[in-house]
Amino acid sequence: MAESWSFLDTFESNFRPLVVIELAKGTKKETIEWFTKRIVDKKANGGAQLLVKPLATENGDENIYLVGASHLRLLLGAETVGLVKECSDNSMRAFTYSSRKTFKDFADDNQNFLTMAECQYIIKHELENLRAKDEKMIPGYPQAKLYPGKSIVRRLLTSGVLVQIFPLHDREELKKLRHSWYGRVKVGYQPLDEIRCYFGETIALYFGFLEYFTFALIPMAVIGIPYYVFAWEDYDKYVMFATFNLLWSTAILEVWKRICAIMTYHWGTLLMKRQFEEPRPGFHGVLGVNPVTGREEPVYSSIKRQLRIYLVSLPFVCLCLYFSLYVMMIYFDLEQWALDYHEENGSNFSSLMLFVPSIIYAVVIEIMNRIYRYAAEFLTSWENHRLESSYQNHLILKVLVFNFLNCFASLFYIAFVLFDMKLLRQSLATLLITSQILNQFAESLLPYWLQKRQKMRMKKRVHSLKKDTDLSLVEQVNLEKEMGTYFGTFDDYLELFLQFGYVSLFSCVYPLAAVFAVLNNVTEIYSDALKMCRVYKRPFAEPTANIGVWQLAFETMSVISVVTNCILIGMSPQVNALFPDSKMDLILTVALVEHLLLAIKFIMAFVIPDKPRDIQIKLARLEFESLEALKQQQMQLAAESLKE
Amino acid sequence: MAESWSFLDTFESNFRPLVVIELAKGTKKETIEWFTKRIVDKKANGGAQLLVKPLATENGDENIYLVGASHLRLLLGAETVGLVKECSDNSMRAFTYSSRKTFKDFADDNQNFLTMAECQYIIKHELENLRAKDEKMIPGYPQAKLYPGKSIVRRLLTSGVLVQIFPLHDREELKKLRHSWYGRVKVGYQPLDEIRCYFGETIALYFGFLEYFTFALIPMAVIGIPYYVFAWEDYDKYVMFATFNLLWSTAILEVWKRICAIMTYHWGTLLMKRQFEEPRPGFHGVLGVNPVTGREEPVYSSIKRQLRIYLVSLPFVCLCLYFSLYVMMIYFDLEQWALDYHEENGSNFSSLMLFVPSIIYAVVIEIMNRIYRYAAEFLTSWENHRLESSYQNHLILKVLVFNFLNCFASLFYIAFVLFDMKLLRQSLATLLITSQILNQFAESLLPYWLQKRQKMRMKKRVHSLKKDTDLSLVEQVNLEKEMGTYFGTFDDYLELFLQFGYVSLFSCVYPLAAVFAVLNNVTEIYSDALKMCRVYKRPFAEPTANIGVWQLAFETMSVISVVTNCILIGMSPQVNALFPDSKMDLILTVALVEHLLLAIKFIMAFVIPDKPRDIQIKLARLEFESLEALKQQQMQLAAESLKE
Repeated sequence: MAESWSFLDTFESNFRPLVVIELAKGTKKETIEWFTKRIVDKKANGGAQLLVKPLATENGDENIYLVGASHLRLLLGAETVGLVKECSDNSMRAFTYSSRKTFKDFADDNQNFLTMAECQYIIKHELENLRAKDEKMIPGYPQAKLYPGKSIVRRLLTSGVLVQIFPLHDREELKKLRHSWYGRVKVGYQPLDEIRCYFGETIALYFGFLEYFTFALIPMAVIGIPYYVFAWEDYDKYVMFATFNLLWSTAILEVWKRICAIMTYHWGTLLMKRQFEEPRPGFHGVLGVNPVTGREEPVYSSIKRQLRIYLVSLPFVCLCLYFSLYVMMIYFDLEQWALDYHEENGSNFSSLMLFVPSIIYAVVIEIMNRIYRYAAEFLTSWENHRLESSYQNHLILKVLVFNFLNCFASLFYIAFVLFDMKLLRQSLATLLITSQILNQFAESLLPYWLQKRQKMRMKKRVHSLKKDTDLSLVEQVNLEKEMGTYFGTFDDYLELFLQFGYVSLFSCVYPLAAVFAVLNNVTEIYSDALKMCRVYKRPFAEPTANIGVWQLAFETMSVISVVTNCILIGMSPQVNALFPDSKMDLILTVALVEHLLLAIKFIMAFVIPDKPRDIQIKLARLEFESLEALKQQQMQLAAESLKE
Repeated sequence: MAESWSFLDTFESNFRPLVVIELAKGTKKETIEWFTKRIVDKKANGGAQLLVKPLATENGDENIYLVGASHLRLLLGAETVGLVKECSDNSMRAFTYSSRKTFKDFADDNQNFLTMAECQYIIKHELENLRAKDEKMIPGYPQAKLYPGKSIVRRLLTSGVLVQIFPLHDREELKKLRHSWYGRVKVGYQPLDEIRCYFGETIALYFGFLEYFTFALIPMAVIGIPYYVFAWEDYDKYVMFATFNLLWSTAILEVWKRICAIMTYHWGTLLMKRQFEEPRPGFHGVLGVNPVTGREEPVYSSIKRQLRIYLVSLPFVCLCLYFSLYVMMIYFDLEQWALDYHEENGSNFSSLMLFVPSIIYAVVIEIMNRIYRYAAEFLTSWENHRLESSYQNHLILKVLVFNFLNCFASLFYIAFVLFDMKLLRQSLATLLITSQILNQFAESLLPYWLQKRQKMRMKKRVHSLKKDTDLSLVEQVNLEKEMGTYFGTFDDYLELFLQFGYVSLFSCVYPLAAVFAVLNNVTEIYSDALKMCRVYKRPFAEPTANIGVWQLAFETMSVISVVTNCILIGMSPQVNALFPDSKMDLILTVALVEHLLLAIKFIMAFVIPDKPRDIQIKLARLEFESLEALKQQQMQLAAESLKE
């Protein structure tokens, strides 16, 4: 390995900027020098061994730096992050520099062996893993303390010296991608592999899920339409529809796991090992030895983390949920009071008053959502998870539970406390349609307008810079650094999750929900694509093997929807008419059917394998090979020890 | 490797008999010659490279053979079967002959590095994997067809040439084990490690589970006693007891997984890879290439197997279940008829008639159970599972469902159709106590008597053989070959499973069930130990990492028991008295509580990790090392390919 790194000393003439580092204006010279030196420095000296170039700006301030790396450096980095690539024999293997020749499409002069997203991911990984050695503080900023093992970039970010790090767009590639993605009107699948190459696996998987989910909803939508058109309210048809929905939603979630496994196997992320993930940048602890890898890294007691989760976070979340329910009850009281007031007075003022509770409630919910989101982020960060994925899962779980309650608690109240099916149908339709319209507006019209404004502003700037030679790059960097930051797929999944809730929880009350969901999702794909390509900064690629905690969230929703639908059917007048004498028989029948459906769901989930057979075989083969390799190694060690 | 095998040509003076092969009397000479040659033959020639010695019997018939192996052969066999042993650095690793020096307690002259059970397992594995090459039939038996890849031993067994293969007891070891296990009256744990060394992991795990389960039932028993003594029938106390039972049973099953992982990690079986298991002896198919290992072995389409399972086995099982329910209904009708008849006539004859339905039902159930067991074995064998574990799981699942119905259907009928709590308590107590007494009788008194009879018979034989020099061995083999065969832990687990059903399904009706279960299990441990050591032939060791499908069975039972207990509590007069006005409120409350309990159960199962943290780390470490080894190997390959 040591000899490989020495190659990097040779001067790299064709510098290709990949990542932009924006420092605060007026950052001290000594800090910049120290930081860039650490970036450029050799691995052996604790550096990242990357290439750095300042970007000339209009006023001569050197606060923007472009980071790149030699081709060799990137290949070695690919090995460090554990990228999995396809070999010439079509199997997927962890890339190593020494075995590079065995990989498909590898050639020493082929700069495209690693996609640009992968290169940027590698650089991000190397930058984030720049760790303090014996520095006690950031040079020039005595208040920004450092200790051995602390991520330098993280400290620079928290102390405000570093404004942001973001990857550059590749205009050529982006144009091609845009064209094949949403540039022409066509019927067909999204170019998921191209999306993955450009934006990374997490985003590609989101779009894959969105597409799959839309297709999966079509049968529910098609069956739902006649219920609306012909106003079928027969008992048997209703039960059939609801039963189909429940089993169908189980099936689509199980099948998604298989499709996801196929996709991520070919992307190589299914084989990337989660256990050997480097600690996330925000993770802190005493420098110790990782018991798995034997490497030196910060260590934090898992018991302390558990205590923080169960003794602080969990009670806090419960308290918030209780508070949210309390606010909802106040809202219903206010509503009632407004209604009474209007009935008593009947004036114009009183009819206006009818809207007040809803408005107050909407505003309060929005405020609570925001405060809770900050609190959840703070708490999850304070729980000090070692892995980014574990941090994300805990954060998602916290936010999810709260959002679920805020969205559906009022519907549950209407359905199961007020027993008002008409109001339920009306509220459901209102909530679903308004949230979709708002989202579409926020995701395509608003961005389009922002886009236009930004271009105008940019044009002005560019005119004042016409003298520069490196114009297009400067123009691009300046344009992109002003763009909004894409904070991950969280909100996109949340939207889908809540939509799934509207469709499945009360599907037998409002069969048209699936139709609206399908229509929304078709435009959603286009508006999300536009958002990714045009509105936001390019996000860093994040390798992932599945949609993580969202799978669990959707499955839980589908279990809850069995319960709600059974109760709703049991409450419908048609079904009640079937049991004229005894309410008890009705309830017992409903409970029996519900238990049967739940049992069928669990049996289905148990019987359908999570990975298709050929992927299972490929994984087993790799595991077998790695164990054989371990045996071989032990044999060599043994042979050597025998010689001594 | 090639050179290692050649060592085996040297004559082995200290032959240690490990396994006995009994051929049919009058087996043709050519068959015996061919079979023993194959056993002794070199690996390269398709043999097993073991040692064989005929056992002289009274009438000079050579139909019993002793099989042994050289120490070296056993070590190489240990590598083949993938035994995992402890290294000097306390980590667990797959044993390889070349790395033998790195293992704890290894010395070239230490014959005890492999336990006797492991040696016998290796020999069994080698014998079962003797496969036909170009033979078209067994020499001397033209009707016993062979084809390439067919297990020879299997064909010999099915054609009746081979009577049995069984491992020999080690009298010294057995004496020590008996002493520490049940030889003295003591309070304490069983010597599970010693049991594992002597009988293998499957049986040790059964006794481990039995012990754990008994301890786990003690709290339920202790809490249950005052309910019986003071006849508490208060609503709140009852609910508390049932709730405690339900949560407790979830907790004990989750904790068992952790304890099981700790035990099997130290036994090495947690790391043995299931995917690389050799196909089970009964598995047949066209000779093909295993896609995982790349080795030649019989291959059978997984789709065909699925079709057989879902289109034949599943409908058959459902039909049997329906038939069993039908028979139960006939029994209840007969019972009613007998009661009516007795009330009408009131004679002695009619009071005798009262017992007739129960007797007929018991006999019919027993017959059905036996027929069903044969059918299940036939069907599972016909499904042609590649792995022994998968065969076992499918067989267990089939038998389990049927036994569950036969045992509990009548109790369910009494509880939820007849609503007769008194009769339920009475039937439950009768069933539980009689089944326990019968089992204790069948497992300790009967064996004791058989034991005595066998010894008497043996003594007679030995007297007629006093001239032989190798007397004690001949005596031992002749004694052991007449002993009954232990058909695996299936029936023992089934007994525990049904006991768990009696304890948990109706725990709130009969809190004393746990007390009886604990008392029974304490004696069960001793009678099972006696059975293993004294009554049965020594069974072959079977490495296993967990109790397999039984874990799932117990968990399912605990889910079902939530439902039954909630219904029973809902039906109790005390609870009914709390809802004097509305049955509906009662049922809704019960349903709500049930759903809450189920949710808590699933959250508990989700939150409690299946493996303790230190085992997780050790496993991750091994995986990391094997991946690093694979990388190293690739690097070497790459380096070599660069040189060319």
